[in-house]
Amino acid sequence: MMSEKKVKAGLLGLGTVGTGVYKLVQAQKEEMPRKTGAKLEISRILVHDLQKERKGVDASLLTDKWEDIIEDEEIRIVIEVMGGIEPARTMILKALDSGKNVVTANKDLLAEHGGELLDAAEDNGVDLLFEAAVAGGIPIIRPLKQCLAVNEIDEVIGIVNGTTNYILTKMMEDDMDFDEALAKAAELGYAEADPTADIEGLDAGRKAAIMASIAFHSRVVFSDVYTEGITKITPRDIAYAREFKSVIRLVSVAHNTERGIEVAVHPMLIAESHPLASVRDSFNAVFVHGDAVGDAMFYGRGAGEMPTASAVMGDVIDVVRDIQYHCTGRIHCTCYRSTPVKRFDDVRNKFFIRMQVDNRPGVLSAIAGVFGIHKVSISKVVQKNVTDGVAELVIVTEAVKEYHMKDALERLKEMETTREISNVIREY
Amino acid sequence: MMSEKKVKAGLLGLGTVGTGVYKLVQAQKEEMPRKTGAKLEISRILVHDLQKERKGVDASLLTDKWEDIIEDEEIRIVIEVMGGIEPARTMILKALDSGKNVVTANKDLLAEHGGELLDAAEDNGVDLLFEAAVAGGIPIIRPLKQCLAVNEIDEVIGIVNGTTNYILTKMMEDDMDFDEALAKAAELGYAEADPTADIEGLDAGRKAAIMASIAFHSRVVFSDVYTEGITKITPRDIAYAREFKSVIRLVSVAHNTERGIEVAVHPMLIAESHPLASVRDSFNAVFVHGDAVGDAMFYGRGAGEMPTASAVMGDVIDVVRDIQYHCTGRIHCTCYRSTPVKRFDDVRNKFFIRMQVDNRPGVLSAIAGVFGIHKVSISKVVQKNVTDGVAELVIVTEAVKEYHMKDALERLKEMETTREISNVIREY
Repeated sequence: MMSEKKVKAGLLGLGTVGTGVYKLVQAQKEEMPRKTGAKLEISRILVHDLQKERKGVDASLLTDKWEDIIEDEEIRIVIEVMGGIEPARTMILKALDSGKNVVTANKDLLAEHGGELLDAAEDNGVDLLFEAAVAGGIPIIRPLKQCLAVNEIDEVIGIVNGTTNYILTKMMEDDMDFDEALAKAAELGYAEADPTADIEGLDAGRKAAIMASIAFHSRVVFSDVYTEGITKITPRDIAYAREFKSVIRLVSVAHNTERGIEVAVHPMLIAESHPLASVRDSFNAVFVHGDAVGDAMFYGRGAGEMPTASAVMGDVIDVVRDIQYHCTGRIHCTCYRSTPVKRFDDVRNKFFIRMQVDNRPGVLSAIAGVFGIHKVSISKVVQKNVTDGVAELVIVTEAVKEYHMKDALERLKEMETTREISNVIREY
Repeated sequence: MMSEKKVKAGLLGLGTVGTGVYKLVQAQKEEMPRKTGAKLEISRILVHDLQKERKGVDASLLTDKWEDIIEDEEIRIVIEVMGGIEPARTMILKALDSGKNVVTANKDLLAEHGGELLDAAEDNGVDLLFEAAVAGGIPIIRPLKQCLAVNEIDEVIGIVNGTTNYILTKMMEDDMDFDEALAKAAELGYAEADPTADIEGLDAGRKAAIMASIAFHSRVVFSDVYTEGITKITPRDIAYAREFKSVIRLVSVAHNTERGIEVAVHPMLIAESHPLASVRDSFNAVFVHGDAVGDAMFYGRGAGEMPTASAVMGDVIDVVRDIQYHCTGRIHCTCYRSTPVKRFDDVRNKFFIRMQVDNRPGVLSAIAGVFGIHKVSISKVVQKNVTDGVAELVIVTEAVKEYHMKDALERLKEMETTREISNVIREY
């Protein structure tokens, strides 16, 4: 078992993360046998364009035919870092069916087809690991599946999108508005040319689905996740957050309740004293509550070439160990329950409502009346900015079901004294 | 492999953590086969006093003869939660030599005899896991050995003692002095009758040794660790920390440098913006820097019945999986290097020095001169509290070798104009 062997791996994709993985394998050439008992070699790399110059990469390893990897019997590990649903899904299924272990960083794919892939891995007795698919370099999948395995986890709250966290940090700390902060994020390479998936919460939503599945032992897919982005957050909201000793963050929120799983992504006010509030810039963090461990948090880089490659390589090293010990497949899919996912309308949240109203007697009382009818308890009211007969009203509520709030807002909008519902943000 | 088996475990000790483990095994009776493919049963429990009443524990499992556990061939896992060096060391070695897997929460033992125990585990092809020995419920050993395994880790900074963190938080936020805060900690059960091991940094020092060994792949033992406690921290120091937008925390600091490993436990000023500064009350956290992952932090409960039992059970579940897959021993001791540990005198640190001096011309210049001779660069000087001809001087230095600072302080003490060196605290 301890004689020095060599394990061959094939790389599907040589973009940012793929290049990071390749670099780490080179850098750790001497260390790998001491860490795992075996050498590790990237023996083939799938790329789109064979002609493109790639510095520091042995050109003889490149291929544009994926069969060269999937059908190579010497390759024991397939590392998928292309992203996207297809052709990644087909390639991974073929690899698993060929008895190869797979390590992937593909959150899109896992959030939609995780069950299918994990079943295929189990059928073939091989590993399918995906630590890098959630929160980049931060260990979260393995801690949930192993370290915290005895816990009934009832809450997973994550800041799992670096782009939006960077934007919100800039708005909060440097008084930028959303567009300025987005431009700055793009300039630094944190935001993509089309930032929709980030700023609308879709990227975070995929990660939320994966984390909820693992934490609650029940399959949650992306379409189960309510998503709301950060484009409507204004400097005015930020100013109130500051006044309330809170920050605004885009969070993925998942709860396991007696009546089902709640899972959503939306901006939230978080008290400054909460550990998640100290997560600044493009950092990510995942906050977990378990019945035995209590509160725990995992913090670090959620994206980027080397942090993501670090997570991929942690998985690869585990597979190399499993190959040495003939125990690939030892950690299965842990979704052994079928807990329903609640309709988002039935989820309870606290709300921060900022609205412009006529500044005359009786208005606040009428608004409070509307909330009362719709079973919304108010915990705080702040009135400000009284100009030209208009007052800005900020109302913070107790926890209330989403549909009650929706109904109340509908009714508030119709009131003659309401000039504008400026924003509605949930509060942790 | 997937047929439902039963794995039997023996428990050495039924104190706080042992009781937590027993409760979790009972609570997870139905879940365990779904999580691991096997039932888990605590079949024997070693206690001191067979007569003592133990609510909720099946009395027929109790024994006061450890041979009943070590020599029971059906027991595959020994869970050691007694603490202390002996007889735990002897019992664990016997268990390993009998081919049993061992899970332990014993930091004292691992910080002194970790190498010996891990060698015995490897010789016998069994697991020796100890996630609970460092930072209680917080996953840190497994993330370092697996998730971050590809990284060259060069820094591990931990708040790994809840008692002292609670005391420092109370001093900082509720303006208590040390004695008041310690009394409060004792009242809440955070401090033991003899709090020496906590407040003098010994407990944190043992955890520092274990973490440094794993992070840097080289054996570090407790006697390698410089330790300094928090008893000399005064409200006056706390007030300056606040003024400097910092907090004071007892931290374990380990660096892997070209000239060797640095490892120490002492109080430190940490800037409010650093994630470690947000670790309040009895919470723990470990901050890690790796070449690929960058900064990462792990936060949670570092002690207590259920959080510690959570970590123990995470290990037990892993062993049950390894038993199912016949791969016990798959993660060895990872100390494959022999990096020397630096003399603490040669470690570089920044310092905060608070002193009382004669308030007359030329004094500051003379003091600056002494620092200059001893190669200490000053980054900040604050003078305050000028009363009766005495000035309080606070000097913050650049990073300087410990022995240079020692020499400079020696010389400062001898100066006629020095009334008192009130405190010397390191700065992160």
